[in-house]
Amino acid sequence: MSASDSQAQRAAMAARYQALRAHTLALAAPLSAEDQALQSMPDASPAKWHQAHTSWFFEALLLRPHRPGYRAFDERFFYLFNSYYEALGPRHPRPQRGLLSRPSLDAVRAYRAHVDAAMWELIEQCDADTWARALPVLELGLQHEQQHQELLLTDILHAFSCNPLLPAYDADTSLRAARASGPLRWLRHAGGRLELGHDGQGFAFDNEGPRHEVLLAPFEIAHRLVSCGDYAEFIADGGYRRPEFWLSDGWAQVQAQGWQAPAYWLEPGDPRAPARDWQVFGLAGVRPLDPDAPVLGLSFFEAAAYADWAGARLPSEFEWEAAATGLAGLAQLYDAAWQWTRSAYHPYPGFRPLAGPAAEYNGKFMVGQLVLRGASLATPPGHARPSYRNFFPPAARWQFSGLRLARDIEEGSKT
Amino acid sequence: MSASDSQAQRAAMAARYQALRAHTLALAAPLSAEDQALQSMPDASPAKWHQAHTSWFFEALLLRPHRPGYRAFDERFFYLFNSYYEALGPRHPRPQRGLLSRPSLDAVRAYRAHVDAAMWELIEQCDADTWARALPVLELGLQHEQQHQELLLTDILHAFSCNPLLPAYDADTSLRAARASGPLRWLRHAGGRLELGHDGQGFAFDNEGPRHEVLLAPFEIAHRLVSCGDYAEFIADGGYRRPEFWLSDGWAQVQAQGWQAPAYWLEPGDPRAPARDWQVFGLAGVRPLDPDAPVLGLSFFEAAAYADWAGARLPSEFEWEAAATGLAGLAQLYDAAWQWTRSAYHPYPGFRPLAGPAAEYNGKFMVGQLVLRGASLATPPGHARPSYRNFFPPAARWQFSGLRLARDIEEGSKT
Amino acid sequence: MSASDSQAQRAAMAARYQALRAHTLALAAPLSAEDQALQSMPDASPAKWHQAHTSWFFEALLLRPHRPGYRAFDERFFYLFNSYYEALGPRHPRPQRGLLSRPSLDAVRAYRAHVDAAMWELIEQCDADTWARALPVLELGLQHEQQHQELLLTDILHAFSCNPLLPAYDADTSLRAARASGPLRWLRHAGGRLELGHDGQGFAFDNEGPRHEVLLAPFEIAHRLVSCGDYAEFIADGGYRRPEFWLSDGWAQVQAQGWQAPAYWLEPGDPRAPARDWQVFGLAGVRPLDPDAPVLGLSFFEAAAYADWAGARLPSEFEWEAAATGLAGLAQLYDAAWQWTRSAYHPYPGFRPLAGPAAEYNGKFMVGQLVLRGASLATPPGHARPSYRNFFPPAARWQFSGLRLARDIEEGSKT
Amino acid sequence: MSASDSQAQRAAMAARYQALRAHTLALAAPLSAEDQALQSMPDASPAKWHQAHTSWFFEALLLRPHRPGYRAFDERFFYLFNSYYEALGPRHPRPQRGLLSRPSLDAVRAYRAHVDAAMWELIEQCDADTWARALPVLELGLQHEQQHQELLLTDILHAFSCNPLLPAYDADTSLRAARASGPLRWLRHAGGRLELGHDGQGFAFDNEGPRHEVLLAPFEIAHRLVSCGDYAEFIADGGYRRPEFWLSDGWAQVQAQGWQAPAYWLEPGDPRAPARDWQVFGLAGVRPLDPDAPVLGLSFFEAAAYADWAGARLPSEFEWEAAATGLAGLAQLYDAAWQWTRSAYHPYPGFRPLAGPAAEYNGKFMVGQLVLRGASLATPPGHARPSYRNFFPPAARWQFSGLRLARDIEEGSKT
Repeated sequence: MSASDSQAQRAAMAARYQALRAHTLALAAPLSAEDQALQSMPDASPAKWHQAHTSWFFEALLLRPHRPGYRAFDERFFYLFNSYYEALGPRHPRPQRGLLSRPSLDAVRAYRAHVDAAMWELIEQCDADTWARALPVLELGLQHEQQHQELLLTDILHAFSCNPLLPAYDADTSLRAARASGPLRWLRHAGGRLELGHDGQGFAFDNEGPRHEVLLAPFEIAHRLVSCGDYAEFIADGGYRRPEFWLSDGWAQVQAQGWQAPAYWLEPGDPRAPARDWQVFGLAGVRPLDPDAPVLGLSFFEAAAYADWAGARLPSEFEWEAAATGLAGLAQLYDAAWQWTRSAYHPYPGFRPLAGPAAEYNGKFMVGQLVLRGASLATPPGHARPSYRNFFPPAARWQFSGLRLARDIEEGSKT
Repeated sequence: MSASDSQAQRAAMAARYQALRAHTLALAAPLSAEDQALQSMPDASPAKWHQAHTSWFFEALLLRPHRPGYRAFDERFFYLFNSYYEALGPRHPRPQRGLLSRPSLDAVRAYRAHVDAAMWELIEQCDADTWARALPVLELGLQHEQQHQELLLTDILHAFSCNPLLPAYDADTSLRAARASGPLRWLRHAGGRLELGHDGQGFAFDNEGPRHEVLLAPFEIAHRLVSCGDYAEFIADGGYRRPEFWLSDGWAQVQAQGWQAPAYWLEPGDPRAPARDWQVFGLAGVRPLDPDAPVLGLSFFEAAAYADWAGARLPSEFEWEAAATGLAGLAQLYDAAWQWTRSAYHPYPGFRPLAGPAAEYNGKFMVGQLVLRGASLATPPGHARPSYRNFFPPAARWQFSGLRLARDIEEGSKT
Repeated sequence: MSASDSQAQRAAMAARYQALRAHTLALAAPLSAEDQALQSMPDASPAKWHQAHTSWFFEALLLRPHRPGYRAFDERFFYLFNSYYEALGPRHPRPQRGLLSRPSLDAVRAYRAHVDAAMWELIEQCDADTWARALPVLELGLQHEQQHQELLLTDILHAFSCNPLLPAYDADTSLRAARASGPLRWLRHAGGRLELGHDGQGFAFDNEGPRHEVLLAPFEIAHRLVSCGDYAEFIADGGYRRPEFWLSDGWAQVQAQGWQAPAYWLEPGDPRAPARDWQVFGLAGVRPLDPDAPVLGLSFFEAAAYADWAGARLPSEFEWEAAATGLAGLAQLYDAAWQWTRSAYHPYPGFRPLAGPAAEYNGKFMVGQLVLRGASLATPPGHARPSYRNFFPPAARWQFSGLRLARDIEEGSKT
Repeated sequence: MSASDSQAQRAAMAARYQALRAHTLALAAPLSAEDQALQSMPDASPAKWHQAHTSWFFEALLLRPHRPGYRAFDERFFYLFNSYYEALGPRHPRPQRGLLSRPSLDAVRAYRAHVDAAMWELIEQCDADTWARALPVLELGLQHEQQHQELLLTDILHAFSCNPLLPAYDADTSLRAARASGPLRWLRHAGGRLELGHDGQGFAFDNEGPRHEVLLAPFEIAHRLVSCGDYAEFIADGGYRRPEFWLSDGWAQVQAQGWQAPAYWLEPGDPRAPARDWQVFGLAGVRPLDPDAPVLGLSFFEAAAYADWAGARLPSEFEWEAAATGLAGLAQLYDAAWQWTRSAYHPYPGFRPLAGPAAEYNGKFMVGQLVLRGASLATPPGHARPSYRNFFPPAARWQFSGLRLARDIEEGSKT
């Protein structure tokens, strides 16, 4: 790469870094310092923690190894804001992130500024060799921060849902799921021997590859997601009281947790918002159920039970990817809800994790979780792609997670 | 009571109300809004919650029943800030008090001001009948707020102890336990048939009465509390590894919780404050162990085990009260630490709880707890008295709780 | 003691030992080997374990220290059948006693026979010094076995209650609680300064002394226990739905455990015995509720709530003892149910535990429990006495535990 | 089918039924009634329960629907011995199977005989239509009983492992895992587009189909299982202390459970069998570790960690099946240990569960578990086949479960 090309590349990266980091702050802007310290369950983290941890990532994986003379803002943050990297030493227990009133939000903001200044220098000043080594980690750090931007939103929504006042994150937020009205249409895919997984162009996480051949039988897939209106019919038909639709572990959850509707749905007459119809709590606060909005807040168990009730099934992650890349007419791919698939989150054939500490980024979670495809209303623009693999345990329901139906093609049938 | 007497009484009460309420704010002053939202365990409450709940008490027990036309600051607070009064309806679950980022600290302060204004009017303007009914409840509300002033401190100390940074509440705080140097002296009490319990002069909680006769055998009691230096000897002698000193439930706690020292003691080399000797975390932050300071942060189990190791025992609550009222020479009665006794927190003979909602104030907790006597460094001045009965479960150790030794007098012995 | 006196004493002791040990086997006789291996909760033990542990007690406290050359039946039993004696080394975890299908019941019986033979020799052959030292431990061992005779019954009843078939221990058992018909009468006690606790004549456990003076106000006590008929009125009046009668911890239990009636009461229509009225499960199996039988299977919380509902209270343990020794007309003292008192199980003034390993027998449990007085239908004849102190945690309800009401005497009142 | 063919078929089935049912009794023969009542964890069941439940299966799915006039041995057994069939009504809670001392083992044996007699009549006497409908269910019932024959052994082994005496199931048992000595050899499979899954000949469970095409990259697979000697090297190399080999959930288990070796391995010096080298507890009791025996008692997490440490990986279930059907030289396929694969237990494309109550047999468990292939020393002869899919959660380690390594073929590499 020529020197001027490199300079242009560095300048572009610096601009992108700056914009992306600013976006994190913008997302936190509607929240008070008190809000940003909330941790409502071990699986979720405080907004303040997300802001600190994403900075820690740049510090731990870039500034410490690649910026000689870098002075930490506070050495103790290396312990406080490590998430799960065993190779980087011990760390603050995850369930206790909500007990960190100190460092204050102001201190975390100062930490971010400190890291940003050092990153700026690194991007501008490092030598070519360092730049070559740093660039993929920098890209990973930015993608990482985008993931936490979404989590910041899903986690504060969960925290607010635990407050009887049901506060709105932002009553006027533009973060809304794409709607789709009208009956569901089935789109046919011929299946076959297909190459799937990331094709190597542009960034992808290690878990999206290697690209490899997959055999698919012909199948049909719904042009839109299951809507709140659709899902309300399932509830009205006794969906949460009939074990025949449920996986065994799902039925156990229904009974143990008392599930009767998706997360954040308020029954008619709920004392927190005592309307006569279903209400739904979201980033904009409590709103009447919109039948054309996609259903959100589903666990895999609920998605699978709904599909069974509907005489259909969930797509595999490969069916989803084949449809997303090969079919016209699919709505709500990346702008509504993460879509549960019937695929376990396991490594692709020939999978190799990243080298170094980033090896722990994805690979070590490859058991006990299911793949979700697409993206949600809260996914930062430009973050998702057809090969993107999101993953959560089957009982998780605090994400913006819904479903798109699929079904087999009966022999001799025609669409 | 003459009209002018009544006016003077009202004015005095108003002044006391104002000063006491201001003291609560002063205690919270060193804490940020983030700090004040912390709840580190179900038994402890956020500083913000203490400020709201004490206001709720005046609102629920005085303004609503006795101030016609009183308009609530926010009707939902009646649910949010009820602590445990079943008769006053459902309430926010105790373990989730830390999830209330809203109402914000500012809103809680506004709530306090709203209640204060209404209380002011009530005190000034209510008719004589209302005043007669309101006065004992007002007194109870003030005493109640003083109790929460102490809890605010013990609870934030626990919360800060869960933060690896071990922040100081106030490095320059004047809240310090009275020290006592020199060897322990035994003071002899002749026992006998004594009247104990509150004598009816001035305020007392219902649990301090009725005053009644008690028979006591002669006993001896220590002139000072067990000091940190004393307690360090117990540790050094294997106190936490030798079951013979412990009650069965206490030994189970030692093993289950891994207790090796009082709460907030940091072992030599603790990574959070890696000094070569014991350190103690307190309101002023981490400080070297002071051998002449009273040991704090003890559970009943530890206090009893120490006493056994020392060849002594804990006093009964009646022995303590008899000594406090009848013996000269007792140090550290009310200015150091609550002192565990060997008495279960049960009703006195003939005990009757208060009428109305305040019936739930004390009586319903009269099982499963032990009585502590005295008062601590954190007890508001003027709050305690010889008949005061504090109470906690035997495993509780986040209070400023220590012990004073007692022992039987062997027949024929002389002091 | 003369040689012939000693021989007579030894012969009497041997006979008593033999009869008492045989009684344990007789109690187990209605049970199969499978039944005798059941452990339905950590607090209860298998019938087989009771038979082994009582033998272990003689082995560990008498044969090993006092019988030179004694060969253990199986050295591993020393670990398996120690209950809670820390001084005697590690032991099998209590919650796993039900996993010991081996040693088989036959092996445990052989172990008993082995111990009996050695005990026989010890009693007959040991020298006078050994006999003097052994005698109090032998007495303790017999009393200990009697305690386990009762526990064998309460524990198997609990185990059987977990079996949907609700098997009877013995449909024709003569173990029945004494009934009392007719209205409750109040007996008046003048109170005063009384000597209570064991007076030193005959055997008593260490926790029954020292005998000491107690001051009692005048009080009234019920001539009979609360009956099933009485208690059914409390239930019908919403007793289990009204928090005002309950201690706070009790109310929490009601809600957490879903208590709606005493242990072993079957609601009308219960699928296990679908009669139209209350049924009660007991040693004889399921029987219709007998209104004149004493209510059994109560926790302290329920006993206290009932008393509050009835406008009365529980007696203190001293009131109970004063009444039992000083009043005529008390029914159902020792032949119906253990009677909860309002007294914490704490040491008496001047209490000293036994020396040696038996020190752990009683003293280390003296916190967190309540005293029950009297004895039950399942207590071996001759085991109880007025000073006897039984004790259980306040939520325990699998014993034959009921209540006798007491009340204060209002000034100026007359009976 | 001709009448005589049908008669021959029925006779053959009757003989097979009889032999297979007798085999269950033979497996239980070394166990006492006390042993057969043990339940050591919710996932395991008492041997007695296995004998009853397998009879219940015939009763519930064959005799009740297909044998008019069939009289149940005991109607209550329908509730007691249902395992997990929601469609067949409520059932005794799984964790409480060990509390059923009644029905006694003798009663369960009588129940078996009762069912056998009725089955005999059904097989002999039912009309042709009934026979046609009954035959597949009968076959399923026999296969089902074989599965429980293996579970009876794995469950009693777990129960005995909880007994400090570590009793042997049968010191002379012929149930031994096939050994394999010598270094591991890698066998190459060319991969390709293969038809896998059950081919429809002979019995298979619903989860083994539909047979479908699968694409496999070339791979290598080990000719033998990982041996105890191999695994001991992993332990010696710090395998249980190095997080880099472990999946995140696996590492959490290692720490939470304190795993340091496979289930049933006894460390040198273990007080239960204090030898100087590793000992292994198995059906024959405690034996010195045999380096050439396959390692058993592994969770998926341990199998995957070992594979990572060894520079290899687990095969997918399709690789395993392709190798088992297409390669010569594979040892220990069905006579040593179930072999963990890297495949989630999910439905094959086009999977349809059985009709009727048997629909719940397999399908509802298809999430959260991993597939194991092959069979173990405890699998009844003739039960397994190449398409057989066993499944357990990743932390399960009380089965006879081990692993066979696989690895990718690097481009350009040669074997």
